[in-house]
Amino acid sequence: MAPRVGDDVSNKQVMFRDYVTGYPKESDMFLTTGIIRLKVPQGSDAVLVKNIYISCDPRMQFFMRKAVGLTGYDRFTPVFVFHENLQPMFGYGVAKVLDSGNPKFKAGDLVWGITGWEEYSLITKTESLIKIQHTDVPLSYYTGILGMPGMTAYAGFYEVGAPKKGEYVFVSAASGAVGQLIGQFAKLEGCYVVGSAGSKEKVDLLKNKLGFDDAFNYKEEHDLNAALKRYFPEGIDVYFEHVGGEMLDAVLLNMRHFGRIAVCGMISQYNLDEHQGIKNLMHIGFKWIHMQGYAHRNYYHLYPKFLDTVLPFIREKKIVYVEDAVEGLENAPAALVGLFSGRNFGKQVVAVAPE
Amino acid sequence: MAPRVGDDVSNKQVMFRDYVTGYPKESDMFLTTGIIRLKVPQGSDAVLVKNIYISCDPRMQFFMRKAVGLTGYDRFTPVFVFHENLQPMFGYGVAKVLDSGNPKFKAGDLVWGITGWEEYSLITKTESLIKIQHTDVPLSYYTGILGMPGMTAYAGFYEVGAPKKGEYVFVSAASGAVGQLIGQFAKLEGCYVVGSAGSKEKVDLLKNKLGFDDAFNYKEEHDLNAALKRYFPEGIDVYFEHVGGEMLDAVLLNMRHFGRIAVCGMISQYNLDEHQGIKNLMHIGFKWIHMQGYAHRNYYHLYPKFLDTVLPFIREKKIVYVEDAVEGLENAPAALVGLFSGRNFGKQVVAVAPE
Repeated sequence: MAPRVGDDVSNKQVMFRDYVTGYPKESDMFLTTGIIRLKVPQGSDAVLVKNIYISCDPRMQFFMRKAVGLTGYDRFTPVFVFHENLQPMFGYGVAKVLDSGNPKFKAGDLVWGITGWEEYSLITKTESLIKIQHTDVPLSYYTGILGMPGMTAYAGFYEVGAPKKGEYVFVSAASGAVGQLIGQFAKLEGCYVVGSAGSKEKVDLLKNKLGFDDAFNYKEEHDLNAALKRYFPEGIDVYFEHVGGEMLDAVLLNMRHFGRIAVCGMISQYNLDEHQGIKNLMHIGFKWIHMQGYAHRNYYHLYPKFLDTVLPFIREKKIVYVEDAVEGLENAPAALVGLFSGRNFGKQVVAVAPE
Repeated sequence: MAPRVGDDVSNKQVMFRDYVTGYPKESDMFLTTGIIRLKVPQGSDAVLVKNIYISCDPRMQFFMRKAVGLTGYDRFTPVFVFHENLQPMFGYGVAKVLDSGNPKFKAGDLVWGITGWEEYSLITKTESLIKIQHTDVPLSYYTGILGMPGMTAYAGFYEVGAPKKGEYVFVSAASGAVGQLIGQFAKLEGCYVVGSAGSKEKVDLLKNKLGFDDAFNYKEEHDLNAALKRYFPEGIDVYFEHVGGEMLDAVLLNMRHFGRIAVCGMISQYNLDEHQGIKNLMHIGFKWIHMQGYAHRNYYHLYPKFLDTVLPFIREKKIVYVEDAVEGLENAPAALVGLFSGRNFGKQVVAVAPE
């Protein structure tokens, strides 16, 4: 029998043991079972939800480390900072509202936003929650193509890099949640698009399923500069940066005048004791390059416009969206850890209690 | 007696011996005396000028080296490429038109733009020449505050970095031709401005004559990150980049969210066998920083607006402009070479035949 509002029920949770150094390991997390009352406390504007999907995202690693040396970074990431040990994990997810003290949400609503890594969550910080209006697409998409990674790709493509028809576009980490969308947006807008990824399977995906003009496995290239010259004999107009390090250095050598570099992330660098130095930055000045860091969080005013653009692409099958789903909270730690070794194939999601 | 149109006259010239490696030395140039006929050849749209001032600019070093590895750079710098040995030097200057085959210029006009390092020049590529309309200010200013460096500072400040009132602005190489103007624009717009320079005298100039809020000698700072934290406890909103290397790395650590970095040049890096790696670029992504390379050449449509802004600043003495002038073509090679050791104090100009 389905639990009802007011019941005390058992609540499986993925707990966070302590701040990590380096990449998270499975042993940094553990499962436990608590008890939760399925009711929002009197007078609170929280919502109580049943989690349906939770999302594994590369940026979660930051929220598992003590922020050292990232001046001012904390200011913008309050919900992800773990102030004490033994906290349940947080992250983006899709959930159903069971009880609400918040006028914006009512029981039965489907929402996406930041929730707990557990079966049921009492969400007190509701700012990130967005009500799901369109359910003719898989709900899991709201952890990806229609959620944070989708907004990231949309903002990066249309607002930051803004490639024009016929321009040469390069996407690194192109099979990831953001990269696969950016590459497809670029094709839909008439650009020439090449992606890099870290395995033969991912390269095949890019070329054969996602419609990239070309793709290569960066692990098989000894000279990234030569590789880029091969794929872009005319140079690169717009680079979507997800990896940093040697790839960025090679890209700078191959950028065209007035080129743009949209910096979403630099995943190769986050966990090095000493970050790799980028030696070709002078090309920013030589070639009047525009390099811009961005994050989804500054673009949510565009969410309705984003849905107007992307929902038709999905319904008309103009966009292919690849998910890597695991079932059950107990498999969430391994799924998250797998992101950092590139084990996932497409957007990594955990089905907690699919509808 | 002043030479007349049609006369054959002797023409002192600074010759360029061959492509240099590293910084230019005085011995890479030599003086010679040729003969020039003071007349534009029949049917040509060239202009024949008497040079008044010539300008020494850091970027001239590029045009003295074989362009290696600067993909696509050449396309934009045709006039400066020395295709054969024993060419006279070129550069920005102020000149008087003696004879003209070009409908845009007539004898007696004063012009600024790219001319030869010689007493008289036959200028066949006239695209860069701009007629001087305002002569109530020193003509030498058209090699600096009213010429290419002025346009660079104007575009960098108003079009690229665009600091707003109350923002924290940092300028490196702040006593240089571009830096001193940017800092003063920033003060006029109500910003808080700190500059770095390489000597006590330059720091004194910034603080005591140019009105910077503060300034420091980077050569006396062992830890640039700590220095910047001292001068910018709240962080930096806009950085005007002229040096690169360690300074840029320290700046990245101290940038605020949504900060802007306007990249005019990276003079510390141009002549290293191996460029210093920049390790803190991740902050571009973390803090949504905008980094943009730019050059004056893309902003000449704004030249009238630029004059409308800057001429009143000069006439009302709201801007201090510091020149380092030497007399005579024979001193031009040493003046140019001095730029690269920081010997000049303010904008370096050579008076060839001041009016």
